[in-house]
Amino acid sequence: MKTLKIGICGWGNVATGLFKAIEKNSNLIQLNGGVNLTIDVIGARRDNPKCNPGKTKIERDIFDVIKHDIDVVVELIGGVEVARELIIKAITNKKHVVTANKAVIFHHGDELFKLAQENGVKILFESAVCAGTPIIKLLKEELAANKVSKISGMLNGTSNFILSNMEEGAEFDSTLKLAQDKGYAEPDPAFDIEGMDAAHKIGILSSLAFGTSLPPEDFFVEGITKIQKSDFSYAMDMGYTIKHLAVAKINESSLELRAHPALISLDSHLANLKGVRNGMEIDTDLIGKIHIAGSGAGQESTASGLISDLIHLSNTNEISDQLYKGDEGKYPVLDFSNLVFQYYFYIEAEDKPGVMASITSLMASKEVGIESIVQKEELGDSCVPIILITDPFKESDHAELQKELLNLDSVRAIRSIRIEAK
Amino acid sequence: MKTLKIGICGWGNVATGLFKAIEKNSNLIQLNGGVNLTIDVIGARRDNPKCNPGKTKIERDIFDVIKHDIDVVVELIGGVEVARELIIKAITNKKHVVTANKAVIFHHGDELFKLAQENGVKILFESAVCAGTPIIKLLKEELAANKVSKISGMLNGTSNFILSNMEEGAEFDSTLKLAQDKGYAEPDPAFDIEGMDAAHKIGILSSLAFGTSLPPEDFFVEGITKIQKSDFSYAMDMGYTIKHLAVAKINESSLELRAHPALISLDSHLANLKGVRNGMEIDTDLIGKIHIAGSGAGQESTASGLISDLIHLSNTNEISDQLYKGDEGKYPVLDFSNLVFQYYFYIEAEDKPGVMASITSLMASKEVGIESIVQKEELGDSCVPIILITDPFKESDHAELQKELLNLDSVRAIRSIRIEAK
Repeated sequence: MKTLKIGICGWGNVATGLFKAIEKNSNLIQLNGGVNLTIDVIGARRDNPKCNPGKTKIERDIFDVIKHDIDVVVELIGGVEVARELIIKAITNKKHVVTANKAVIFHHGDELFKLAQENGVKILFESAVCAGTPIIKLLKEELAANKVSKISGMLNGTSNFILSNMEEGAEFDSTLKLAQDKGYAEPDPAFDIEGMDAAHKIGILSSLAFGTSLPPEDFFVEGITKIQKSDFSYAMDMGYTIKHLAVAKINESSLELRAHPALISLDSHLANLKGVRNGMEIDTDLIGKIHIAGSGAGQESTASGLISDLIHLSNTNEISDQLYKGDEGKYPVLDFSNLVFQYYFYIEAEDKPGVMASITSLMASKEVGIESIVQKEELGDSCVPIILITDPFKESDHAELQKELLNLDSVRAIRSIRIEAK
Repeated sequence: MKTLKIGICGWGNVATGLFKAIEKNSNLIQLNGGVNLTIDVIGARRDNPKCNPGKTKIERDIFDVIKHDIDVVVELIGGVEVARELIIKAITNKKHVVTANKAVIFHHGDELFKLAQENGVKILFESAVCAGTPIIKLLKEELAANKVSKISGMLNGTSNFILSNMEEGAEFDSTLKLAQDKGYAEPDPAFDIEGMDAAHKIGILSSLAFGTSLPPEDFFVEGITKIQKSDFSYAMDMGYTIKHLAVAKINESSLELRAHPALISLDSHLANLKGVRNGMEIDTDLIGKIHIAGSGAGQESTASGLISDLIHLSNTNEISDQLYKGDEGKYPVLDFSNLVFQYYFYIEAEDKPGVMASITSLMASKEVGIESIVQKEELGDSCVPIILITDPFKESDHAELQKELLNLDSVRAIRSIRIEAK
């Protein structure tokens, strides 16, 4: 049986998880993957009390890992700039690279893929995008014969956990706290709940499926912090729930790329995906629509993805993954303000005659159609919520409309969520 | 760029679909797969008016395809015994085999995998199991580092189409007719609606995940023909829908293997999967629970799976897929009668005093607990449906209990469906 010699850089949770998973399932890996994975050296700035690496050689300078006689560097140090430097050094020393680092792929993917191609080595990164959901190999291998036209889904487990708890009646703040207690959310949760994590992931997937650049052009990103618990019950009444969606979609010869909360139909396959889960829907020409869903990243999921990359490395005989595609056939990213959505508006107004008339007149003057407008039960303080569903209109008119609605005499507060077309 | 020389055996819908897909997406295949797929010869007993093979060499005796200088035989003749012979001849002539034929893999898998291993060639069969859902490579590659503990799901698109239409209020017979008109069901639909298609698929998946034999030991298979439209509304009232489920599941050191209709919770991820779709849930040790769903087999989905097999063949450097695992670590298949289920019973009874008492007394005498028993609205002819949900009890007692319930004085008809535990 062949052997793949591995150097691990980094010795935190993910690295020790990989170390333990290779130990635990080594028979299985040999049986299924036909390869003996050996960890020859670990680059660890310091020991990790949670894992004893046994007799494995330790380097305190992670860059020294590359000097060893290894086939592949597994980059698990995190961050962006040092990770980039490390990967570049590994590649130019003709080592393959496996990484779980989505930020470095998002920001420097094109540069790194090009360099890898020039040096005849591979970069694999299954665990960098939804580690519990093997979306990278699905796109690159199983769907290789398909033209993909759309990828959409919930790519951030923390946001999905928070929103699906809010769907059950919990408040945002207490659910975020719960997510932090359970280790699903970081002490500083901004990266997850402001949408950047999902944005990084859809950027990488878009590069794989549609050849967009890494880093991508700027695209629209919005997090879940403005969603209120009551939005769920109003949405439910109309057959919707609320999810944080990331979307990359061919729109004639350009590409929609966006990540934001959206109302989605309750009977869609993604609506039932609750908790710390990631789920995607992929539209293709040959195979139609595929769904895939898995748990958000954890230590063991990440290890699973890293190992599948290592097995893949040992079983493929040449550099057929042309990750760097240059500018050929590239889809330009559409200006978000040109997209068209239906909108859900929550309007908090004084409970007095004429409010509905003033809202509908304003909508008419803006030439935005109304699909439905419903006044809900008074909230107290003679204040009523009005739920307005618009016909589709252009994103560029949205901010202005929202501002003018808020300027109406009797309107006290307003918020809006896009509705994802079926 | 390397070339893979292909001989296609069979020239029906699937074969012409493959021919057209390779033609249509050849640039994409070269870009994503790094291989030029050339169809060098086609074994066609007769021409197919739907597809002109151009200058491709035709052999009227499909066995003559193997004599050509090709790398791989794509077996698309269907059936079992001739297909087996053809595959054996291809293997012993050192040709790889790609097939979409689930029957031949189910009935002769172990023999063929062993022979392939001895001859240093591969058999790939992504399209043989749920062609629109790349479950084979998912299990063999992406989850290679994982211990799988359970695979369950809807593996037959026709059954799922019929059941999800019945959920919306349609009758069985008219929906079956509709499925036939749309080409989802065969003129003789028995193979699909009696559960054998799903049984073949779960048998193959169980072999991949748990090393069970091909052909497998006998296991429990039941189709969807006894389900009535009204069962859906009664199930819905209790938070369930009805799906045809195939399950392979580790139960201590043996294996549950079964395919039958089941009530599943409406909030489960599989419940929302409607129409001609296949969907699976896979439980693993590292990565947790994965869901994957795709369209049922069609000409193009099948082509997509075949092409992904061909790309995989050209990119892997050795026979690492040990499909034939011998008897090592094999899980014996559990006797179905030892399994324990909750049951849904639909009992049609005369609307007179004492009926509920006689049912509940019988249940008590059998020591089967009752979770709920509800008398529904009269059907006319002084006949009432009674919906009984039992506590879990042993499958071996089920037939006898059903018989005795039917023997009760006032009971006119009865049917039952297993409830799948969450």
